[in-house]
Amino acid sequence: MKQSPGYVPGEQLDGASIIKLNTNENPYPPAPEIADVLQGFDAARLRVYPAPNAAQFRTIASDLHNVPADQVIATNGGDELLRLAIATFVEPGASIGLCTPTYSLYEVLAWLHGASTVDAPLNDDWTLNADTVSIWQNAGARLGFVVNPQAPSGHLIPTSELSAIATAFDGVLVIDEAYVDFVDPSLHYDAVTLCREHDNILLLRTLSKGYSLAGLRFGYGLGSSAVVTPMQTKTKDSYNTDAIAQALACAALGAQDYASDTWARVRRDRDQLAKRLTTLGFACEPSETNFLLVRAPERASAKELYECLRQNNILVRYFDAPRLSDCLRITIGTEAQNDELIRALETLLSG
Amino acid sequence: MKQSPGYVPGEQLDGASIIKLNTNENPYPPAPEIADVLQGFDAARLRVYPAPNAAQFRTIASDLHNVPADQVIATNGGDELLRLAIATFVEPGASIGLCTPTYSLYEVLAWLHGASTVDAPLNDDWTLNADTVSIWQNAGARLGFVVNPQAPSGHLIPTSELSAIATAFDGVLVIDEAYVDFVDPSLHYDAVTLCREHDNILLLRTLSKGYSLAGLRFGYGLGSSAVVTPMQTKTKDSYNTDAIAQALACAALGAQDYASDTWARVRRDRDQLAKRLTTLGFACEPSETNFLLVRAPERASAKELYECLRQNNILVRYFDAPRLSDCLRITIGTEAQNDELIRALETLLSG
Repeated sequence: MKQSPGYVPGEQLDGASIIKLNTNENPYPPAPEIADVLQGFDAARLRVYPAPNAAQFRTIASDLHNVPADQVIATNGGDELLRLAIATFVEPGASIGLCTPTYSLYEVLAWLHGASTVDAPLNDDWTLNADTVSIWQNAGARLGFVVNPQAPSGHLIPTSELSAIATAFDGVLVIDEAYVDFVDPSLHYDAVTLCREHDNILLLRTLSKGYSLAGLRFGYGLGSSAVVTPMQTKTKDSYNTDAIAQALACAALGAQDYASDTWARVRRDRDQLAKRLTTLGFACEPSETNFLLVRAPERASAKELYECLRQNNILVRYFDAPRLSDCLRITIGTEAQNDELIRALETLLSG
Repeated sequence: MKQSPGYVPGEQLDGASIIKLNTNENPYPPAPEIADVLQGFDAARLRVYPAPNAAQFRTIASDLHNVPADQVIATNGGDELLRLAIATFVEPGASIGLCTPTYSLYEVLAWLHGASTVDAPLNDDWTLNADTVSIWQNAGARLGFVVNPQAPSGHLIPTSELSAIATAFDGVLVIDEAYVDFVDPSLHYDAVTLCREHDNILLLRTLSKGYSLAGLRFGYGLGSSAVVTPMQTKTKDSYNTDAIAQALACAALGAQDYASDTWARVRRDRDQLAKRLTTLGFACEPSETNFLLVRAPERASAKELYECLRQNNILVRYFDAPRLSDCLRITIGTEAQNDELIRALETLLSG
């Protein structure tokens, strides 16, 4: 058996008493319309194969984003889109560009495909390395991954920087927008426009975070036909998304007002939580996501805080990795959950 | 973009007037218990990630097949299990053994992984080539695929032959049992016992056919820990099956009496249909699946029959491929659908 770099997903503990602030789920339930569609779904429809390319969902996404439907691909969670991008655009043995530290699954997927990775380390302030493209090009990278807003820092990269990368890079640039729904609308961030200007950009979207549907496994990609068509027609499993998931995903995109309201609440609580953590001595990175990357106060160890919170049934994320070992990544919860977190930290830091 | 061998799935046409006998769905609806679980599913559960390894489903499958739960892996349809087996056990550049003609997706998945394939052609009577293992071994194959009961012939390979292959083969033998539910129980076919005797066997099961859940995308694998654990812990996407699919799959395996009844009805109608097609001049291969591979009467062209049936809103499968171009593959439908097919063929053949 081959040895893998080993992706470690966040813990999924059961129990109503657990406060889960470790895997960046939306703290609010899915839209009522989704429950309605689920209730009304006729089980007899499951007898036959689902629509192989999720045509109805793609039409709705096409309308929402104002792109042609053939520039949308539906996938079994965003993770499948990442895998498809690698399988489609990277020959085994070739290289994949990263901006590190980043989502650790990229490296695992590269390894599974027999591809290598090349790192363009983020600057100390988590901004993009100015040499990102040259580092990628020198390694012959065929694909590059940028998370935006970034994980784990939460920073938002301006579209001008992404556009410059796409222009200079000979390969396909994947912009992983898993957290884009939580960006402050007043910033007018919009990377979909980049797909019209560059035929080598693939945007990743997911319903897991913004639409409160992590349990459903539904993501999608947006990009030029040059990028989307080969994944749609050649690489993906014939029936990659199931009939129920397709129906609920359509309902989710249709319930924009409900979803937008949850995003606004998360943004409001994110700012509140950042202030309170700063007061406790944490250094908070500015975040346009539904989580905060915070550096522990000098008098405390991030790892010990993580472990003590866990004993108090509060799960946050700790990365035992370079540049992150003194940090915690904390998902924005409900107001009550955030209050409990702050209370627990106050006790731990005064203890 | 790389050039693919191109998997062409069966057509999925909409419309109540279409008689779909082309993609081997079960003609009967899923068990009532499945509709009940779907109705009772709380949409709020979708907010959080699903159980990453489908623990509850694996426990139920473990009880059903009398194997330890850690020897079961749940997948997003059987197709995902095929892909995982290749990704786990075949280095890019290495070879994969086939028994041709066979399920055309194997070759596509091999190509996507950068692996080659080596063919052990089936004998003229569709039995296994006696040199299968030596052909595979000489090419250095690390994985071999056998469909049983076979597609597209419908024949059942005895477990003694599969056991002999597993013993002689240095790689992993995947036995694709997509159609196993339709095997006559009086034959006492049971390949699960082989998993206990050979640590290099992986059995593929799917809920798409036997359990009338093609729309759900749920399959699973059974095998030794040596085979299952690496796929479970290293290769598969972290959350490959969604929360609803897991719940419905549990209900499906729990409703054995209902499912078994549909299998018995399919077997009864399969035998009836074979007799009627034989009367019309077709040569029917003996089938232990829910389809029949039939050779067209000498006075007719299989391709023309396929096209004329299609004009009559009856879809069957035609393969424009060596050894199959004078054949049709016909899914066993309901009694009424089978009657319509026979009536249409009578008209076409007398015309």
